[in-house]
Amino acid sequence: MSMETVSTNRAHGGTQGIYRHGSDATGTNMTFSVYVPPHEEGARLPVLWYLSGLTCTHANVTEKGEFREACAKHGIIFVAPDTSPRGDDVPDEDGYDFGKGAGFYVDATEKPWAANYRMRSYVEEELPTLIAAQFPMADMTRQSITGHSMGGHGALTIGLRNPNRFRSISAFAPVVSPIHCPWGEKALGRYIGEDRAGWRQYDACALIEDGARVKELLVDQGDADNFLEEQLNPDLLRDACKRAGIDLTLRMQPGYDHSYYFISTFLGEHVGWHAERLKR
Amino acid sequence: MSMETVSTNRAHGGTQGIYRHGSDATGTNMTFSVYVPPHEEGARLPVLWYLSGLTCTHANVTEKGEFREACAKHGIIFVAPDTSPRGDDVPDEDGYDFGKGAGFYVDATEKPWAANYRMRSYVEEELPTLIAAQFPMADMTRQSITGHSMGGHGALTIGLRNPNRFRSISAFAPVVSPIHCPWGEKALGRYIGEDRAGWRQYDACALIEDGARVKELLVDQGDADNFLEEQLNPDLLRDACKRAGIDLTLRMQPGYDHSYYFISTFLGEHVGWHAERLKR
Repeated sequence: MSMETVSTNRAHGGTQGIYRHGSDATGTNMTFSVYVPPHEEGARLPVLWYLSGLTCTHANVTEKGEFREACAKHGIIFVAPDTSPRGDDVPDEDGYDFGKGAGFYVDATEKPWAANYRMRSYVEEELPTLIAAQFPMADMTRQSITGHSMGGHGALTIGLRNPNRFRSISAFAPVVSPIHCPWGEKALGRYIGEDRAGWRQYDACALIEDGARVKELLVDQGDADNFLEEQLNPDLLRDACKRAGIDLTLRMQPGYDHSYYFISTFLGEHVGWHAERLKR
Repeated sequence: MSMETVSTNRAHGGTQGIYRHGSDATGTNMTFSVYVPPHEEGARLPVLWYLSGLTCTHANVTEKGEFREACAKHGIIFVAPDTSPRGDDVPDEDGYDFGKGAGFYVDATEKPWAANYRMRSYVEEELPTLIAAQFPMADMTRQSITGHSMGGHGALTIGLRNPNRFRSISAFAPVVSPIHCPWGEKALGRYIGEDRAGWRQYDACALIEDGARVKELLVDQGDADNFLEEQLNPDLLRDACKRAGIDLTLRMQPGYDHSYYFISTFLGEHVGWHAERLKR
């Protein structure tokens, strides 16, 4: 598996890199970012995945996330994938909430999306294999995952489906139940088709109802978030975790919205929370 | 003096705002950002100015600067102006290093630039008056200044010309002597004209040679900065400070370049350095 280095910059004592590779999963080139903190030669460092929200690429969190200081302090590698396949040949349509920038971390089964929109396989299988091959300091036995909005949905669902891969899972303003919100109904209906049974593997609350179990979850949610009531519904996750005995820490953050000003306020804290669990 | 609020976002417990106003100095609308940290009602907070570099607006540091956590911790207001007048009626020309995005913090005297390119008056006089009027928690008796590249030049020259206004001055990869570099020769030659005597008020090293004095300066400079040798010449500032008895802390940062990955690594530390001096 090969990749190309787009750029590297020294930051907080480590290296912020942007990389590109040809993806078998999506059939396109894919770009992602990796921050490697300062470390001693031969050290093996845990990996925190960050999945981004609608309209984003790897770049938003890389530039605005304010995570590097905490990653440098705790010795954590930070990986940020793109949110969809890219390129002129990739089917798309108008609207920010479907198509490019809106892969929803699913493997599409419906035409014309199934050929490229395979972000589940990309994030669950292909990119971890590439990271393991290209970053010898990455200790793939110690991984955690977080994400924002659509990427919070991605972090929760990928984490819940792979409890042995991830030591810990957190999210910022996640779409906790795509089955029950307009963004999710549109995306799953078109990527996966009208049979709603197939949607449940892409819904954190449904996964928990269907038996997925982790010890704990950390979720931050701004109470001034424009999408809170219609799209995000954190109460659904609270109820599902309560019934399942999952220890959910849901922090309603007063005055915070859906932006990177919210994420960057708390992302360093999440890095520290994951670091505690990655070092046990 | 009136202004319009473009946006406000809660961040690190305070408020990151973007504002717009009609400027008498430039004859255009101007946009700037102000971060007000969390504070008690009636508190009076010191102000740190940040002047940006070539091609930037207020937005670059606001989004990528990683300064808010330190400002929240130390109780510092952070003000980031734009780098030039803006608008379709403002004269401009091709090239990133002159015209829009490249005001060089001078009051132009040459046609056609003199009508709008008055960033010295804007940053030295008009914007501070607006901040004092619109942000009642801003304690204008306690100000400090920093900046990057062209904005490091701005911070040094404005600071050196106004030693009683600023408690402390720092810079990131500053243009320390525009008289002695291509960026500066082009900008000053066209904004101020060919008489080089008029350039010296816009050159930190010349100001020091001509008698400007401050107690100390803090400068961070990456040693992997592409512009180091041709444009930045920190040795000229080192020599000028040595002759003048100014205590310059010039830190050559190994492996760092000219980007916001460099700035964001050290800006929090600069905020803390200024905070010590603003609280005495």
